[in-house]
Amino acid sequence: MQVEDRLKELKDTINRKVPRGVTVTDVEYEGPEMVIYTDDPKRFAEEQDLIRTLARDLRKRIVVRPNILGDTEQAYDMIKSVVPDTAGITDIFFDTDTGEVLIEAEKPGVVIGKNGGTLRDITMKTGWTPKVVRTPPIPSTTIKQVRQFLRETRDERKEFLRRCGRRIHRDSIYTGRDKEQWLRLTTLGCCRQVGRAAFLLSTPESKVLIDCGESPGATGSASSPFLNVPEIYPFTTLDAVVLTHAHLDHSAYVPLLYRYGYDGPVYTTPATRDTAAMLQLDYLDVNNKEDKVPPYSSNEIREFVKHTIALGYGDVTDIAPDLKLTLHNAGHILGSAIAHFNVGNGLYNIAFTGDFFYSKSRLFNPAVSQFPRLEALMMESTYGGSEDFSPSRKEAEERLYEVINTTVTRGGKVLIPAFAVGRSQELMLALEEGFRNGLLPKCKIYLDGMIKEATALHTAYPEYLNNDLRNQIFRDNYNPFLAECFEQVDSQEKRQQIIFSDDPCVIISTSGMLNGGPVIEYLGNLAESEKNMLIFVGYQGDGTYGRRIQKGWREVPVGKKGSIVINMEVQTVEGFSGHADRRQLMNYVQYLQPKPERVFTIHGEESKTIDLASSIYKKYHIQTVAPQNLETYRLV
Amino acid sequence: MQVEDRLKELKDTINRKVPRGVTVTDVEYEGPEMVIYTDDPKRFAEEQDLIRTLARDLRKRIVVRPNILGDTEQAYDMIKSVVPDTAGITDIFFDTDTGEVLIEAEKPGVVIGKNGGTLRDITMKTGWTPKVVRTPPIPSTTIKQVRQFLRETRDERKEFLRRCGRRIHRDSIYTGRDKEQWLRLTTLGCCRQVGRAAFLLSTPESKVLIDCGESPGATGSASSPFLNVPEIYPFTTLDAVVLTHAHLDHSAYVPLLYRYGYDGPVYTTPATRDTAAMLQLDYLDVNNKEDKVPPYSSNEIREFVKHTIALGYGDVTDIAPDLKLTLHNAGHILGSAIAHFNVGNGLYNIAFTGDFFYSKSRLFNPAVSQFPRLEALMMESTYGGSEDFSPSRKEAEERLYEVINTTVTRGGKVLIPAFAVGRSQELMLALEEGFRNGLLPKCKIYLDGMIKEATALHTAYPEYLNNDLRNQIFRDNYNPFLAECFEQVDSQEKRQQIIFSDDPCVIISTSGMLNGGPVIEYLGNLAESEKNMLIFVGYQGDGTYGRRIQKGWREVPVGKKGSIVINMEVQTVEGFSGHADRRQLMNYVQYLQPKPERVFTIHGEESKTIDLASSIYKKYHIQTVAPQNLETYRLV
Repeated sequence: MQVEDRLKELKDTINRKVPRGVTVTDVEYEGPEMVIYTDDPKRFAEEQDLIRTLARDLRKRIVVRPNILGDTEQAYDMIKSVVPDTAGITDIFFDTDTGEVLIEAEKPGVVIGKNGGTLRDITMKTGWTPKVVRTPPIPSTTIKQVRQFLRETRDERKEFLRRCGRRIHRDSIYTGRDKEQWLRLTTLGCCRQVGRAAFLLSTPESKVLIDCGESPGATGSASSPFLNVPEIYPFTTLDAVVLTHAHLDHSAYVPLLYRYGYDGPVYTTPATRDTAAMLQLDYLDVNNKEDKVPPYSSNEIREFVKHTIALGYGDVTDIAPDLKLTLHNAGHILGSAIAHFNVGNGLYNIAFTGDFFYSKSRLFNPAVSQFPRLEALMMESTYGGSEDFSPSRKEAEERLYEVINTTVTRGGKVLIPAFAVGRSQELMLALEEGFRNGLLPKCKIYLDGMIKEATALHTAYPEYLNNDLRNQIFRDNYNPFLAECFEQVDSQEKRQQIIFSDDPCVIISTSGMLNGGPVIEYLGNLAESEKNMLIFVGYQGDGTYGRRIQKGWREVPVGKKGSIVINMEVQTVEGFSGHADRRQLMNYVQYLQPKPERVFTIHGEESKTIDLASSIYKKYHIQTVAPQNLETYRLV
Repeated sequence: MQVEDRLKELKDTINRKVPRGVTVTDVEYEGPEMVIYTDDPKRFAEEQDLIRTLARDLRKRIVVRPNILGDTEQAYDMIKSVVPDTAGITDIFFDTDTGEVLIEAEKPGVVIGKNGGTLRDITMKTGWTPKVVRTPPIPSTTIKQVRQFLRETRDERKEFLRRCGRRIHRDSIYTGRDKEQWLRLTTLGCCRQVGRAAFLLSTPESKVLIDCGESPGATGSASSPFLNVPEIYPFTTLDAVVLTHAHLDHSAYVPLLYRYGYDGPVYTTPATRDTAAMLQLDYLDVNNKEDKVPPYSSNEIREFVKHTIALGYGDVTDIAPDLKLTLHNAGHILGSAIAHFNVGNGLYNIAFTGDFFYSKSRLFNPAVSQFPRLEALMMESTYGGSEDFSPSRKEAEERLYEVINTTVTRGGKVLIPAFAVGRSQELMLALEEGFRNGLLPKCKIYLDGMIKEATALHTAYPEYLNNDLRNQIFRDNYNPFLAECFEQVDSQEKRQQIIFSDDPCVIISTSGMLNGGPVIEYLGNLAESEKNMLIFVGYQGDGTYGRRIQKGWREVPVGKKGSIVINMEVQTVEGFSGHADRRQLMNYVQYLQPKPERVFTIHGEESKTIDLASSIYKKYHIQTVAPQNLETYRLV
């Protein structure tokens, strides 16, 4: 059946299901959603269960839009009068193409109202469909730009969503009794190595790419996944790209796909979309500063944003005729997800953990380990080696306090190189609590680099944070990221002031592996004095200055200024990683429900993936593989 | 460097190497060969070692052609006068495009002369390059047609060979220090099953398909290899197809490639080219008779023949910038080969056994088990199960004699369904010797179906037979296939005469699994009498009538006539298979030189491939895999 015919049939079915008097005039796909047009949006709003019942019966995500839109000025006044002032509305935007009114508010919950009552009220009184987004408690340039860009390109985006929707809901060509079914997994990177994540799932119907990242520190063709093999190139054959999280070893090459012909969707969380865009822009910036030719321009980052279909955790979404995707919390960084695929209407289920953390951290809940069905698991193995046991977060924090106390007591300054996204926020929360509870001496904590922007993103998407932190911010009205102890460094003047002041302090600055960024200037000036302290809290990649100093080098050629002599004390505090350690990895498999038939250990050094695979097999009697890059496994 | 520049450089190099006074006017690639044009072919012929030295220095297969050709009438007389009458010349053909004169003779050796002396003589005296082919001792329609067709299409073929030669010798795009090398093996069929052989070897430079067969007895998409996956489709991306042998489970879908865009070479032995063409034509015929739509027409079989580049055993041949192919005797059927690939100038070596037999048979030498280098082996496993031990050929023959003796003594007729190619000739040789040595009673052996033509092919290509048989035919002048005991059945009248005669006899007829062909008519008439005997000597596929009768069915619905009641005696004589049995398979790995790092067990039922893989690993500590279809393994 053609899509047109199917839509017509759907319209008839819906008209039979809706109460007498309600008329559905049109049905259209927009991405994975089904949009119902009606003359009578108010009745839809009134009948609370109607949309839910339709969605369940048709097994589709449903959106209702009015045919005739109310006057925007009247609607504006109506919204202002219906929504309590405590909601803190900061922007109202009417999208005449979608019939949606975007309400940006400091407290989205107040706009939504109890059980969505206020929203329904708005629909009934204005005819517009309200969509609520949070006003970032800390202003975020990224979010502002992304929202602005999506508004500007809404025509293109609507056209894209319709095209994409029709492609998702196309007829299956591969039905029939004598057709052999199959499901294949192809490894395009990230096997027996950390970096350049890229995996392909393919069936006779469809092809999905999971992640497309860079290999930090690698050069030439080894820095990108294998994108020139026939399984994936030309990119026009791809149905979808799924992005598990924003870190560049998973996201850096996603915009490149748009440069070379891909024009389909990227499925990811809204938080990952924004964070990835921020990191990709920075990636271009770093490339430019290092006189490298970046593989794409900011145009392609905009294409990535424009083509992203944002999904929340738990949204079961059709992404191809025979594929459903559900994202689940991975506990690694903001918006990070485990991607679960239901293939062929339940024929086979496979989950990609992406990077994950299987314990509650200050920021996130532990990764989800329960799935409706699961035959295969692609599992990261960064700390999969038999010796890779990390201290608990609590032990790590105590050790961090101790080292800072020692330094501050002797009048020194503490320099902590950290990644902008994830580690910095964990550190901030630990330090804030330490100060608040008197476990640390009073001193300033300076944040330099992209940390402020990354932190803003965290508070703009509190639904990805764990309950405790969310409650602290929104119920108890205490945002620890805004605590007095923190001070953002915004100028070169300020930086110099911090460096040459006599006051002890803590400086958290990017980059996390001392490979550039403002941290180098601090290091160059603080390294001289034995009173000062350099603390490593994250993984230092091979070949980075961080790794060299950590190994004991006491003179490193940094930047163009020549070498820096390291007299300051150097300590490594383990236990702040966002990756599951060996114990967590084994526990994760133990507590997985249901148990998969096969586990693939990926995203780890060769020996670690092999060790983890072998240990899982021995302990849980699950078939395991530590694949190589460029292999294809037949799953069905 | 462009091909043109490289050829110019080669010309200069050659001109520096040839003796003073000899001039090379042009150098051109034709398929894997390098053709040297000269005004002075006589000097090239005189300097015996010149071509060999050039070939060694340039690492190319070299052919020399004159610029100016002698008068053909004079040349004809010259050849007739130089070659002794005993050569039995049956045809002389002058190809003005290549400057070759094709001499067809009953005794090619006499035309060639001692150390090629007569050939050189012809070159020196006529300027034409002589090429000698054997006049088939038994007339073969196939060979006649193939030779005729290749003559008719020589212009097209020359154009194809030039295009192909330039493609083979193109520049490598994938050199450079930061480029990652890889070699991948993709299974497109024939894994954990017998049938639809098809494997793909790929590197960043090139792609080669090994075999492309049907799955006998399967229907719909399961009857062909997986040809719609991106690794192989579109077929225009293929550099080469290599065909290990002619049986349809390896060759049936090769012509299909030409229907869907492939226009590159097929590398195989001349014997396999001709035998495959014969079997493919019969395959179309069977399809038509069964009212099926065949996947291609005889046009595509002609394309296959036209695009075949015939190689002898041991010819090391460039087939892509980074691939060299060598075919070795596989001992399975006429022209059957083990395909050995040298990848990336020795970086990696992999051999595909195709179907093989690792013991001397009446027809062939045992499969080759020594290679210059070998990292991986793709090994057939038809009889790879732990119980799959066959009797020796000697035991099998004794048992066959016994069963025939019993039947003939009681005045019955023996019916042996057999495959036209391979099994029939083995049986013929065994029976002929039995008669000659008085181990069998005197009676006629009737051959019906394609057996005669297949036998003709065997004697036209004696270089593929083992020494004993070749000596018997050509040195001792005794061709056992022409023995008096054999009589070809050419007419329906003759068939009826045999059936209704009272004389005991042996009938060998196709098809080998009772799935059609003249054997059905014999069966329908001979089945009634308990005096008669049905002997199975070959594998009976699941679902065939042969398998049913073998299992004990005594009434089978055959053809459109209704059912046949089986009163005749039914016996199975094992040991005539052309496949290595379990003992041979294990011995093959034991005697392999050098030992490979990995063995893939393919072309066998699931349990047998797994059993064989596991046994090889346990006994020889070689890493083994029993792959599934549609998987890709990274070899480098």
